[in-house]
Amino acid sequence: MSAVSGVRAQAESARAAAQVLAQLDGATRRAGVRAMADAILADRDAILAANAEDLAAAAALGTGGALLDRLRLDAARLDAIAAGVRAVAELPDPVGAVTRRERRPNGIEVERVRIPLGVIAMIYEARPNVTADAAALCFFAGNAALLRGGSEARASNRALAAALRAALVAQGLPADTVALLADTGREAMVELLALTDLIDLAIPRGGPGLIRFVAEHARVPVIRHYQGVCHLFVDASADLDLALALLIDGKTTRPAVCNALETLLVHADCAKAFLPRAAAALAQRGVEVRACAASRALVPEWGAAQESDFGTEFLDRILAVRVLPDLDAAITHIRRHGSDHTEVIATRDAQAASRFERELRSAVIMVNASSRFSDGGELGLGAEIGVSTTRLHAYGPMGAEALTIERYVVRGTGQVRHPPGA
Amino acid sequence: MSAVSGVRAQAESARAAAQVLAQLDGATRRAGVRAMADAILADRDAILAANAEDLAAAAALGTGGALLDRLRLDAARLDAIAAGVRAVAELPDPVGAVTRRERRPNGIEVERVRIPLGVIAMIYEARPNVTADAAALCFFAGNAALLRGGSEARASNRALAAALRAALVAQGLPADTVALLADTGREAMVELLALTDLIDLAIPRGGPGLIRFVAEHARVPVIRHYQGVCHLFVDASADLDLALALLIDGKTTRPAVCNALETLLVHADCAKAFLPRAAAALAQRGVEVRACAASRALVPEWGAAQESDFGTEFLDRILAVRVLPDLDAAITHIRRHGSDHTEVIATRDAQAASRFERELRSAVIMVNASSRFSDGGELGLGAEIGVSTTRLHAYGPMGAEALTIERYVVRGTGQVRHPPGA
Repeated sequence: MSAVSGVRAQAESARAAAQVLAQLDGATRRAGVRAMADAILADRDAILAANAEDLAAAAALGTGGALLDRLRLDAARLDAIAAGVRAVAELPDPVGAVTRRERRPNGIEVERVRIPLGVIAMIYEARPNVTADAAALCFFAGNAALLRGGSEARASNRALAAALRAALVAQGLPADTVALLADTGREAMVELLALTDLIDLAIPRGGPGLIRFVAEHARVPVIRHYQGVCHLFVDASADLDLALALLIDGKTTRPAVCNALETLLVHADCAKAFLPRAAAALAQRGVEVRACAASRALVPEWGAAQESDFGTEFLDRILAVRVLPDLDAAITHIRRHGSDHTEVIATRDAQAASRFERELRSAVIMVNASSRFSDGGELGLGAEIGVSTTRLHAYGPMGAEALTIERYVVRGTGQVRHPPGA
Repeated sequence: MSAVSGVRAQAESARAAAQVLAQLDGATRRAGVRAMADAILADRDAILAANAEDLAAAAALGTGGALLDRLRLDAARLDAIAAGVRAVAELPDPVGAVTRRERRPNGIEVERVRIPLGVIAMIYEARPNVTADAAALCFFAGNAALLRGGSEARASNRALAAALRAALVAQGLPADTVALLADTGREAMVELLALTDLIDLAIPRGGPGLIRFVAEHARVPVIRHYQGVCHLFVDASADLDLALALLIDGKTTRPAVCNALETLLVHADCAKAFLPRAAAALAQRGVEVRACAASRALVPEWGAAQESDFGTEFLDRILAVRVLPDLDAAITHIRRHGSDHTEVIATRDAQAASRFERELRSAVIMVNASSRFSDGGELGLGAEIGVSTTRLHAYGPMGAEALTIERYVVRGTGQVRHPPGA
């Protein structure tokens, strides 16, 4: 068959757009991002109508409440999405930033300069806000985004992408700066993930099934945004009021997100003082606890944990609890059961904090602060495309800068490595 | 089968070593690297005897001169390898470096801190010096290295690795900081490349066949060290003496390395003045030229280029030459035929230099400087594990810092994201 497939043709269009984007100055990109935000508000009715279609189709399939909620857009959520896009235009421009400059003894000047990655394939599930967030952040960093959202959000994603593309065209920018993969079948995704000559990075963001699928089929570089099995360790020296505040904030303020706590580990020396207080606060907030035998000896009303509960991302009002003899046991537990996302220690012992930091390899370590700060906005990135659990290129919350790469630019006056006669 | 395979067992040992290495201070790692350098010199006789074995086996197989030369060690080359290892101990320590520090409005202190990547699988071909270079650089950055060298260098690599491991053990460090993959078959390599729970990064360094094989089978993250199809563009405004010096240095001082020039592109306006001079200088140095019709009209003795000569990494005294009407045509040519490694422009026109930089996406751009500076040592990294042509994590020459990743460490005093009652 000599015809170019639809997937390859779309990737080639994205590559052509990326070549244009790599040469735009920051002011042009900022104006483009603002136009994208305006377009989301201007197309509000069409986007909400499309979303209503998706919701009706999902309800007809018997989709559950949590997924329906992630799928749902309303006026307030659209306002928030537009505001998030607009905020991207206020970030420092990562493109062209000189990160290092050195004159070598032979007189050549060596610079490291940030350039865009190129074409980013974003593969994600239900939430339509990712369509706008990813498109804005990729574009601001000078990249083209080829988006493959979940089938349950198809109409919403189409309406959003249509608004964003029209806004770009009106600014004289390539429409294919942002594109939805037209064919949403699994075979098209496999084809996309093999286009090593056209796709510079694939970012899968979703549940274990999606991540596994992408990891198995990708030939292009991948940065996973995998699950957060986040731990809180309450050290023997912890301020227990502080530890309780971290527990409640981490577990109950938004249980369905990746920086929510899933497991509480408690030093045996403070278990008796801490666990009954924790039990009362958790019960009051409707949290189901699955606990080890030592915990249940102190709080008999808690259910028994299975081994598999440790390492599970519940994304719900469920918490696994275990009492451990010391910091070493906590570190060993987290290394075995964690997902390298975010771990919290409550302690007044600087040495314990330092060991927790050095001996764990997770992307984010929190000392006496809530796991819920493991987020690009909270950590000062301004916006995030997600939280990387891949230990390469970007680890933890990923902002605009992580969508660029440093290259070398060398300026000389004719220097050669082996001068004739030398 | 319940037994753990040999490959998995080796990777698990490397992971265990990496956990120890991640906690070592810089002084301990520096001392370990110096001990590795000493061991190479102390074991000189055993290493050279092993190398003689490899050379004899290769000669018996009818291996050609260039490959034999890359395989050969002698006293001077071993001295150079030991000196290269020793130089690593003098580099700035990338581990623990704080790259950003910010206090957020809520009082949390956010740091980005460099930590080791973990376990690095290095997959390479003939040159045994890579065994020592990669081991030293990986270890200095706090990583364990699992090495899979070419079968033609098996005895040399074993002797080198034995020396390095003994030196580490004598320093109280884990032997498996450095290990050769025991099973050098292709199936073992495929198994290694699928160990996503144990291997943090695979670095293939070699020819197209090796790179393709790794890209096809890897499930772990990969940074390719692929070929360098490096271009020199001589702009209309170029100083022709300078351009000629860059051409001779780039093409003739070491044609078999990846930062050597492979293609000369010449602006039509200076072709008549430049090409006959280039022809004389190249002929004097035994370089075969494969040229376009416009070039051959000026230098009739040059052979005719096939289209496939553009984009070929000759690694030999062969050069492809093409005359082009302008800078745009040069940029288009390089985008189509280049390998994203290193491109050089000779020009006196600042705007042409700027466009060459902005419109090309190669890892290294040289303005009026030789392509042969595209090397970690020359660009100020002190040492390099190779030159990445993967546009993620590290792009271009890769030093010790590129073997680490930034993570977040947050210190608070009990801050939560949603304070009760707020």
